[in-house]
Amino acid sequence: MRFNSETSSDGVREHLFTLDEIPGVLWTPDGAVGPRPLIVMGHGGGQHKKAPGVVARAFRFVTECGFAVVAVDVPGHGDRPKDENYDRIVTENQARAAAGEELAPLIAGFQALVARRTVPEWQGVLDAVQELPFVGAGPVGYWGVSLGCGLGVPFVAAEPRVRAAVLGLGGALASAEAARRITVPVEFLVQWDDERVPREQGLALFDALGSAEKTLHANPGGHGEIPRFELDSTIRFFARHLS
Amino acid sequence: MRFNSETSSDGVREHLFTLDEIPGVLWTPDGAVGPRPLIVMGHGGGQHKKAPGVVARAFRFVTECGFAVVAVDVPGHGDRPKDENYDRIVTENQARAAAGEELAPLIAGFQALVARRTVPEWQGVLDAVQELPFVGAGPVGYWGVSLGCGLGVPFVAAEPRVRAAVLGLGGALASAEAARRITVPVEFLVQWDDERVPREQGLALFDALGSAEKTLHANPGGHGEIPRFELDSTIRFFARHLS
Repeated sequence: MRFNSETSSDGVREHLFTLDEIPGVLWTPDGAVGPRPLIVMGHGGGQHKKAPGVVARAFRFVTECGFAVVAVDVPGHGDRPKDENYDRIVTENQARAAAGEELAPLIAGFQALVARRTVPEWQGVLDAVQELPFVGAGPVGYWGVSLGCGLGVPFVAAEPRVRAAVLGLGGALASAEAARRITVPVEFLVQWDDERVPREQGLALFDALGSAEKTLHANPGGHGEIPRFELDSTIRFFARHLS
Repeated sequence: MRFNSETSSDGVREHLFTLDEIPGVLWTPDGAVGPRPLIVMGHGGGQHKKAPGVVARAFRFVTECGFAVVAVDVPGHGDRPKDENYDRIVTENQARAAAGEELAPLIAGFQALVARRTVPEWQGVLDAVQELPFVGAGPVGYWGVSLGCGLGVPFVAAEPRVRAAVLGLGGALASAEAARRITVPVEFLVQWDDERVPREQGLALFDALGSAEKTLHANPGGHGEIPRFELDSTIRFFARHLS
């Protein structure tokens, strides 16, 4: 794990790092000492580790809860090299969707393919970050919606260190099998008028989750329109389960 | 409006009253002076104005938010005389359900019948309570699940003083038409394994709500098993919209 830069603003220290060629960012409270809960965040499709939605949430997890937060670029995203195989599939899928094919199964297939790489990558990141003395081996949470849900469900299912997860904007086609193996508390977000994930698919993924404690929050609006008050709820959810 | 008794405990003053033969209870903060938000609560079927689930919520609304809370007995419930017409329908419905008929449409029909009486009754209660100087004409919220939803949806639809509502454990069969006329923010509770209200019916009632801001909270478990953390969410919801 190589640290490339460290900056600080508004009480949050941002550490840019590279681990096995994977670019990542770790946010911690300024002057953090000793172990603390850690949130792993998965960004959305076409986004990257410092997308505005990721950064805004990370800052609140750090400043309001004192947590550490880590995010890395998904293959083919952000500062990672283009992946010709992925690009080809995306282009093909766009053509098939334009020709009238259903979008959801195409997205699902692509996310399952990418997850085969990201699950071990994120486990390696977790290993490395938890060795830092100001993060340590505290409880871990996962946050990810859309692509971050498609990749997050198999990650949470595979990783026993994760104790609670906020997921959503994803469907059962991609993730139902792995979802059944999840047993930790989950807060699951559905956008009632999601133009990318059919409502029934989102509800079916919530239904598939094996967790005894799982709570579905559905709100009107499209894929990108999660209301602001859900972030307040996310923070309370993580505080309840990780603090 | 006739006050029958007044007691106080843990900072909450409980006023028992009768209005046009309707027995009711009003809870306010001890020593309350001046106007404040008011929550109207509708109890469940077979319950009454001081059922444990009503009292527990009312106490938290009063102590944590400084609100006033009012609940009255639904016709045929609590301290109100038995209603032979209602009793006959309930007995008939039980027989029809025992004979294999679907329960949900029978419940829906009964609730619609009772609502024709409770909507004007509750409006009269609201008029009277808001004239008290320590309640006043502040913003009004409504809380009710199960029968409290079946009766609450037409009440909230009819009553412009209600600015926000927590509803749930109810289905579209009883209430979809009135739900379309509701435009205030709603937090709507669904129990994912509800044995009395089919999941699809609950989701369809949420869908029917005309509100631009509405949020569905669904959790595993049966009709009576709303998790404790939903009350925390209810309190924040009312605080956000009424304070």
